[in-house]
Amino acid sequence: MADVSTAPALSGVLETALYVDDLPRAREFYAGVLGLRAMSGDDRLVAFAVAPAQVLLLFRHGATGKRVELPSGAIPGHDGHGPVHFAFAIAADALPRWEAWLAHCGVAIEARNAWPRGGHSLYFRDPDQHLVELATPGLWENY
Amino acid sequence: MADVSTAPALSGVLETALYVDDLPRAREFYAGVLGLRAMSGDDRLVAFAVAPAQVLLLFRHGATGKRVELPSGAIPGHDGHGPVHFAFAIAADALPRWEAWLAHCGVAIEARNAWPRGGHSLYFRDPDQHLVELATPGLWENY
Repeated sequence: MADVSTAPALSGVLETALYVDDLPRAREFYAGVLGLRAMSGDDRLVAFAVAPAQVLLLFRHGATGKRVELPSGAIPGHDGHGPVHFAFAIAADALPRWEAWLAHCGVAIEARNAWPRGGHSLYFRDPDQHLVELATPGLWENY
Repeated sequence: MADVSTAPALSGVLETALYVDDLPRAREFYAGVLGLRAMSGDDRLVAFAVAPAQVLLLFRHGATGKRVELPSGAIPGHDGHGPVHFAFAIAADALPRWEAWLAHCGVAIEARNAWPRGGHSLYFRDPDQHLVELATPGLWENY
């Protein structure tokens, strides 16, 4: 019998998803401005490798609402709307380079934060108005 | 002058956010069923530590749309709707324990996948109908 006295461990967040209006436009932004490498992509989904065991998924709005049956199993329907927030971790010494790079790319920094634990954050928008944060260590108990 | 010939590196995805209707209900699910530890929380936001430098944020619908000015800086407005998808990584040998634990908690498994690379996924819903996946290694190039 498996132990059901407590939840088994989670290793981490494997996939973080964004839903976008124009998949090629969003792919261009995350590859070109954020420097991410696409592992796979079609007209419904682009999957970027961010770090080991960390994947950013871009889904095209309207392409994921129905359950998909696959030879390997199934993927239930899902969908999302609105300008959501998420954050990337960056090294402390990468902050000035990110500021210069975003300026070079014509991406406006919409806000900054200097957190009590010592970390710094920058906020900007992707082409779908999702609120992207870049944060240096010193923000959370575990970062 | 900072180098602007290429994007600086990202270390990983630091924060993944969900938007929920009932924050105490969602907090209970992610703490009780998923076993996550809340680092902080109020009536607007709960922040869970998932792994080092990996945070799951639960935001209350309607509480985040306006820009917030802080002594430390500012956080621009953001919001999200719809039953979005995201995934947690689990160890291969944790899969049967997760199946038993979810059954014990009364959480129905909505689909499964056995991926070509050898990984296995389970899918279920949180109280806001977000599509949660638990995935063992052998799914992506980087996992």
